[in-house]
Amino acid sequence: MATQPLLIDGEWRAARELINAFRAENPATGEAIGPAYPVSGAADVEAALSAASLAASPLAATPPERVAAFLEAYAAGIEADAEALVELAHAETALPTQPRLANVELPRTTHQLRQAAKAARSYGWTQPVIDTAANLRAHRAPLCKPVLVLGPNNFPFAFNAIAGSDFASAIAARNPVIAKAHPSHPATSERLAQLALAAVRETGLPAATVQMLYHLDPSLGERLASDPRVGAIGFTGSRAGGLALKAAADAAGIPAYVELSSVNPVFLLPGALAERGAALAQEFYTSCTMGSGQFCTNPGVVIVPSDAAGDAFVAAAREHFAAAAPHVLFSRGVLEHLQRNLTILRAAGAQLLAGGDAGAPGYRHAPTLLSVDATQFLREPRALQTEAFGPVSLLVRVRDQAEMLAVAHAFEGNLTGTLYTASHGADDATATALTQALRPRVGRLIGNRMPTGVAVSPAMNHGGPYPSTGHPGFTAVGMPAAIQRFTALHCYDNVAEHLLPVELRDANPGGVARCIDGVWCLDPLDKQALHS
Amino acid sequence: MATQPLLIDGEWRAARELINAFRAENPATGEAIGPAYPVSGAADVEAALSAASLAASPLAATPPERVAAFLEAYAAGIEADAEALVELAHAETALPTQPRLANVELPRTTHQLRQAAKAARSYGWTQPVIDTAANLRAHRAPLCKPVLVLGPNNFPFAFNAIAGSDFASAIAARNPVIAKAHPSHPATSERLAQLALAAVRETGLPAATVQMLYHLDPSLGERLASDPRVGAIGFTGSRAGGLALKAAADAAGIPAYVELSSVNPVFLLPGALAERGAALAQEFYTSCTMGSGQFCTNPGVVIVPSDAAGDAFVAAAREHFAAAAPHVLFSRGVLEHLQRNLTILRAAGAQLLAGGDAGAPGYRHAPTLLSVDATQFLREPRALQTEAFGPVSLLVRVRDQAEMLAVAHAFEGNLTGTLYTASHGADDATATALTQALRPRVGRLIGNRMPTGVAVSPAMNHGGPYPSTGHPGFTAVGMPAAIQRFTALHCYDNVAEHLLPVELRDANPGGVARCIDGVWCLDPLDKQALHS
Repeated sequence: MATQPLLIDGEWRAARELINAFRAENPATGEAIGPAYPVSGAADVEAALSAASLAASPLAATPPERVAAFLEAYAAGIEADAEALVELAHAETALPTQPRLANVELPRTTHQLRQAAKAARSYGWTQPVIDTAANLRAHRAPLCKPVLVLGPNNFPFAFNAIAGSDFASAIAARNPVIAKAHPSHPATSERLAQLALAAVRETGLPAATVQMLYHLDPSLGERLASDPRVGAIGFTGSRAGGLALKAAADAAGIPAYVELSSVNPVFLLPGALAERGAALAQEFYTSCTMGSGQFCTNPGVVIVPSDAAGDAFVAAAREHFAAAAPHVLFSRGVLEHLQRNLTILRAAGAQLLAGGDAGAPGYRHAPTLLSVDATQFLREPRALQTEAFGPVSLLVRVRDQAEMLAVAHAFEGNLTGTLYTASHGADDATATALTQALRPRVGRLIGNRMPTGVAVSPAMNHGGPYPSTGHPGFTAVGMPAAIQRFTALHCYDNVAEHLLPVELRDANPGGVARCIDGVWCLDPLDKQALHS
Repeated sequence: MATQPLLIDGEWRAARELINAFRAENPATGEAIGPAYPVSGAADVEAALSAASLAASPLAATPPERVAAFLEAYAAGIEADAEALVELAHAETALPTQPRLANVELPRTTHQLRQAAKAARSYGWTQPVIDTAANLRAHRAPLCKPVLVLGPNNFPFAFNAIAGSDFASAIAARNPVIAKAHPSHPATSERLAQLALAAVRETGLPAATVQMLYHLDPSLGERLASDPRVGAIGFTGSRAGGLALKAAADAAGIPAYVELSSVNPVFLLPGALAERGAALAQEFYTSCTMGSGQFCTNPGVVIVPSDAAGDAFVAAAREHFAAAAPHVLFSRGVLEHLQRNLTILRAAGAQLLAGGDAGAPGYRHAPTLLSVDATQFLREPRALQTEAFGPVSLLVRVRDQAEMLAVAHAFEGNLTGTLYTASHGADDATATALTQALRPRVGRLIGNRMPTGVAVSPAMNHGGPYPSTGHPGFTAVGMPAAIQRFTALHCYDNVAEHLLPVELRDANPGGVARCIDGVWCLDPLDKQALHS
């Protein structure tokens, strides 16, 4: 079968070995669309890995200015091609063209690439530390090995393996990327890869800086993830897939930064509900169903007091959910996963308040609201924290503050935890207690905002304790922390200056903020101080 | 059998469950010394873990000033008790009382504790980042879970599980420590634990901030390492033991920071040898046999050109090794491990130049020098990188620069790599090529110094690529990086100020260096800017 070529070592190459082929589907209709793409075999994986390994040291030695220029040229290329990209992504994901794809996600992606360019240029992520008395100098450096990035289904641009946050972070640290696109949007990924390649050529980076495979059998993916030539892994996706990759990488001493799953508990405190319950019901419904609820930070569990204001909130929310037509999901896989997990939730005692059914044509499911009382939640905390990826949320009804706290203590690691509080202090005591309970359980603690907004900011943490991610220091968004995942700590002990990387040289020609003898400064090193 | 009590939850408690008992040995004689200590069972492990888990949140909420006071009180306690500590450690390890234990290692240990106190007090390791426009604030925070620290045999003070670098780092980040002492120096560890407990009481920290077990069967150790209540692990020791612990922790999503093994290649360039070969032979011998060679950073492989200056160096080094009496090792285990690994090296083609034999009484082995030519090294690179922990080094003889480079490329991950070069530039071209080859393979690149000196400095990296450690960003020495291993990334998104940790509050009452809107500063937050 004729399949689209792979991007390997700077060229579009026909697959050497075809394990299988697949086509994208329009999830709104279920019809196959676009050309066939290869499920790659070991020969193509080896070609990509060996080319990336050869490119790693030259890329690490490339001036950051040139890497920044690549990221900016790529961002410009994406903008110039926006219309075609949005059309492809819309066809493959059914996400709305406007505002989501054209006005939110695409600009977010180019913004992220430009933030990475800025970070690359500033050397800020390298955090140089100099001890003049001992003549020791340390910094964060490129891994000098390729990073394997596996993208998720839910952001065809902003988390795409060849354009998203992990990609930009790995490249900013001057590591080549072997991208494994998500097979639900291959044409979008292919087009991004073409633009990436054009930018690689324009800026003269090593040809294998950016490569792309479309699909691998899981066993081959795990083999690749455990190859000692791989420097690190960035993954966003399902818990089962991510943990299998992580296990393979762990066994080979390769850091795997995996973002897995999260139900993002939202606590509605009594004062907030009394004050603005109807508005909160609207806000919650909008957040839970935006993008058909297919967000890592979807508000999947909402804790609601069993008082009158809580009842009113539930009634209002139920009305929103009940009035909605089924939403299109990304794929048959997402739909089946959702149905399976709804079954688990209901078997564990969750009652259906609205929705619950699949729809047609294509892969659709009704926005679905479930409810359970806290007693039952605390009896089956594992099953009732099952993530039903899609426009689904489970309400947990609590009788009092003690029950609210007990529920908070039952949560496993999550990306986010949210507290809605009264404007004028009525909920403060409860909020303080909940903050203490939630803080060790979530990466981002949120006040009076729904968790679905993930700002691209240095102060963002899009990570959280296991099992929401694989590492408590992980973030996929927010530089320099996201970049530092893909670095090695390097120390120079009494090394001659001409052998030092530029940001560690006496004169500080890059103008980098450095910690010299305990003080952060932009100063050159005082040679007198050093040699006295 | 009566055994010494365990330190659990602020009290010295008799073991509830005794799997076995053991005594220390004087390695210089092989005689058992001191009282019997318990090999603990599951009941005591559970008691320690559950006490530590309850202490974690209170400790995280303790003002850093009090944690710093604890670290300083402990350091003072160690100094006041130095004579007794040194005597115990000398009896259990046979390390020289002076200068090693009394004048080097003990002061290093108290210095490290005080550095940790300084870091705790300054909040520097928390690296606050604030985005005023988005009202997002992030920092590194305590794990809110205990850290399990397992100490090695070779530093009874400076890497002791209850006093060393991992301990100080975990405590500075306000995490409780469950220390697993090394069973070759239990009385030293017990005395340190008594001092630590006194400092805990003096400064009013939670009672279970510091606990100690002496010995566990490996299977129970792995069960503990995979308990989800454990926040992270710090381990220094053998590759086999460390990898087993890491595998257990990995499977539970617990970060295991393991320092494993390293042969620390030292490259003697032709110009350096021609200039000062005899001095280098002395320097090498001293470094290789100091502490009976029982250093993670021992120069285990030395690359020497096959020219006249290289031959002269080898002859001089051989004389030093041949003239030496056998050195006392830490234990029967270390001796047997050394003998086993010497057999592996010799079976792979290494020729014996000097030493090779065990000695008596106790656990002794002659300083041992081996040699192999580069052709053979490149034929058997794995076997010839076997770490023979002890006063042993393997010379690799290279015919030319190309062979030197090929050998450099054959090294797996190491803690250090060293280049000795001529004073006036004669070796510069070779040094540049070797630097490129070694840089991705070592944590610390050293110029014209032996690797055994590991300064306690913020710019130190005592880590390196796998398999020398388990993570490319790992360092066991050098704060704040060593502390940051034991932290979680926490973000506050639109959270009310009274719920924020002190270093993220508007007024910056702690006077912490923070990155606000991209600029590092000590300023309070301008509320006008925030709310405009």
